[in-house]
Amino acid sequence: MNAFLDDLLLRRRRVQSALADAAADGALFASDVHLFYLTGRVFNGWLYLPTEGAPVAFVRRPADCDLPVEAVRVHRPDDMLGWFSNAPGQSRPKHLLFEADTLSYSDYMRLYSLFQPEKAGNVSAAMRRVRMIKTPWEVEQLRLSSQRHAEVYAEIPDCFHPEMTDLELQAEIERRMRLHGSIGIFRTYGPNMNIFMGSLLAGENAEAASPFDFALGGAGQTPICPIGANGTKLTDGTAIMVDMAGNYTAYISDMTRVFSVGRLSEKAYRAHGTARDIMAAAEVVMRPGLACSELYSMAVGMAEKANLADCFMGTRQQAKFVGHGIGLEINEPPVLTPRSKDALQPGMVIAFEPKFVIPEVGAVGVENSYLITETGAEKLTHFEEEIISLT
Amino acid sequence: MNAFLDDLLLRRRRVQSALADAAADGALFASDVHLFYLTGRVFNGWLYLPTEGAPVAFVRRPADCDLPVEAVRVHRPDDMLGWFSNAPGQSRPKHLLFEADTLSYSDYMRLYSLFQPEKAGNVSAAMRRVRMIKTPWEVEQLRLSSQRHAEVYAEIPDCFHPEMTDLELQAEIERRMRLHGSIGIFRTYGPNMNIFMGSLLAGENAEAASPFDFALGGAGQTPICPIGANGTKLTDGTAIMVDMAGNYTAYISDMTRVFSVGRLSEKAYRAHGTARDIMAAAEVVMRPGLACSELYSMAVGMAEKANLADCFMGTRQQAKFVGHGIGLEINEPPVLTPRSKDALQPGMVIAFEPKFVIPEVGAVGVENSYLITETGAEKLTHFEEEIISLT
Repeated sequence: MNAFLDDLLLRRRRVQSALADAAADGALFASDVHLFYLTGRVFNGWLYLPTEGAPVAFVRRPADCDLPVEAVRVHRPDDMLGWFSNAPGQSRPKHLLFEADTLSYSDYMRLYSLFQPEKAGNVSAAMRRVRMIKTPWEVEQLRLSSQRHAEVYAEIPDCFHPEMTDLELQAEIERRMRLHGSIGIFRTYGPNMNIFMGSLLAGENAEAASPFDFALGGAGQTPICPIGANGTKLTDGTAIMVDMAGNYTAYISDMTRVFSVGRLSEKAYRAHGTARDIMAAAEVVMRPGLACSELYSMAVGMAEKANLADCFMGTRQQAKFVGHGIGLEINEPPVLTPRSKDALQPGMVIAFEPKFVIPEVGAVGVENSYLITETGAEKLTHFEEEIISLT
Repeated sequence: MNAFLDDLLLRRRRVQSALADAAADGALFASDVHLFYLTGRVFNGWLYLPTEGAPVAFVRRPADCDLPVEAVRVHRPDDMLGWFSNAPGQSRPKHLLFEADTLSYSDYMRLYSLFQPEKAGNVSAAMRRVRMIKTPWEVEQLRLSSQRHAEVYAEIPDCFHPEMTDLELQAEIERRMRLHGSIGIFRTYGPNMNIFMGSLLAGENAEAASPFDFALGGAGQTPICPIGANGTKLTDGTAIMVDMAGNYTAYISDMTRVFSVGRLSEKAYRAHGTARDIMAAAEVVMRPGLACSELYSMAVGMAEKANLADCFMGTRQQAKFVGHGIGLEINEPPVLTPRSKDALQPGMVIAFEPKFVIPEVGAVGVENSYLITETGAEKLTHFEEEIISLT
């Protein structure tokens, strides 16, 4: 527990350093992700973190919430003001930051009107930058998720039986995930980024474009959540790309493997080999200082050289990234795009996912999660990377 | 398909009538729920609905999105302005409503700065009022979800085996749900209202308070999602309350049943009987015009008369409602609270859920979904309401 509390303090100091950079007096947090990041718990209420000094949690519910920081019971937002008036050494922050990218406009305005800071700012982007560099405890959580992730993938051949659909296979994998401790909830950043427990794509469905910013699409089973498996029969010659959530702790690992029913087309195996080559090349070059855009252009360059550019990261709709940070949310910075200004840094944990969509067959490729260390990249997701035959 | 399109038109007209009441020129929608409500699809982009005339969808992704309304391809929000300048008979709305309760502050400000309306307003509350009254197609979707919901609950005795935990039982129920067509995604309204596929509460865990506005709590399996099952062993004398999601269509039915391992305490059976009595009494009185607050006070009154007020809707933390509207989200208006100003209206679909928490045993009670008709209430969730023994 001490390691956890030390880590919490480290995270808090990093956030306070970002607040100091913004010349703010403090920030008020309301999102579950940031309440958890700064206290290790989710509660109904707010956390005020001053740029200097200790945070205070204003807790609406539950009344018996056990927090590692000072907790003040409140019923309404207004009750926070009383604390600022009465607590010794505290004054209402003049320059206050809010989570403007996730708070609703109405909630933002309510808090803003309440505190009436002389100056207000947005802490969201800074928090995403701070969270981009994982602390030791966070890295351990990601290791744990990665390990369980691999354990579940090892059971996938047992989940398959002939004549089943992609949705049936996914339901069985979901059950194994839950039995291995998956917490169910799969956190994404951004509005309308809906997905349930990950993505399983087979056959033609791998080509279907989705509205979302995920690497690949799929038609989905319902127009209210148009992504992923759609009831495709897993017949001979079908590639099944499994990219299910690594949500075994609050920190989400990301890992994709491909399974085959019968023999796939030669192009599918060739493209999978190219994806593995791209992965191997990335493993050689990934180290602090490498530009994220470099990783992207290296991947695209290798796809072009293999004459596979037209099916790299999709066909009808091609994702313009080959990887991304992971953590409390599945889509954290940095994003490995052609126009990224980021370079790799020690403590980043990124998913790298070169993938190809082969019309009528499905998607092939590999995705692994990596911790960027002082000297290179350490793979967290250890599992067979060849296409695994289910038949 | 025609019935669906007719219904879409009906929904659109109701929204337009609300826009007219607000004296607005139109509203701009970005949330998945409202894109679906007004087009039957989710896409990445915006829907502009003028108070009079036809809507236009501004679609970023997917490019080939098949919509039942005029669709304009856009890449950035700014591209919308071009359409308003060039489309015949269109002018930029002077009084424009936004989804201020769900749009982030940053997104709101971006759209507001773009459109620079003379007057801006919030369409969120009005949308929740419109959606409160279900259309014929929506009612059919809720019927379908309710039916599948009951089919899955009928399989619960097959899911149980001695020595299992609440989480293991839940995982098996989740699998059956998915095989019966559950879409996985479980929509709630409001920030940080996280829950995964529903709630299963057993034994002492039923008393654990949660941060969320759900009827009951539970400690959950992780501090990042502190609600629901927590690994409790399902031993003799334990009541298992199953309140899993009815997400078999985009519209979510709500239904709770109780299962027992061995014999429960007499108080548990008595409280369950009282919950059933409350349900029966509600079925008699529910009809258009009945105040929602009346339903609440009737339920509390019956709980008091049975000397069970201290465990009604929780013990350490008691929910202050006995039911709520359902639809595209699990927590829609009206809410059956003591201070509700709403009365029942034909077309409302509500979940009524009198529940008691019995220390050391678990939670008992019943929840059904009802359609309010012209003359009364029609139950949608048909399934055995006694406590069902698993042993």
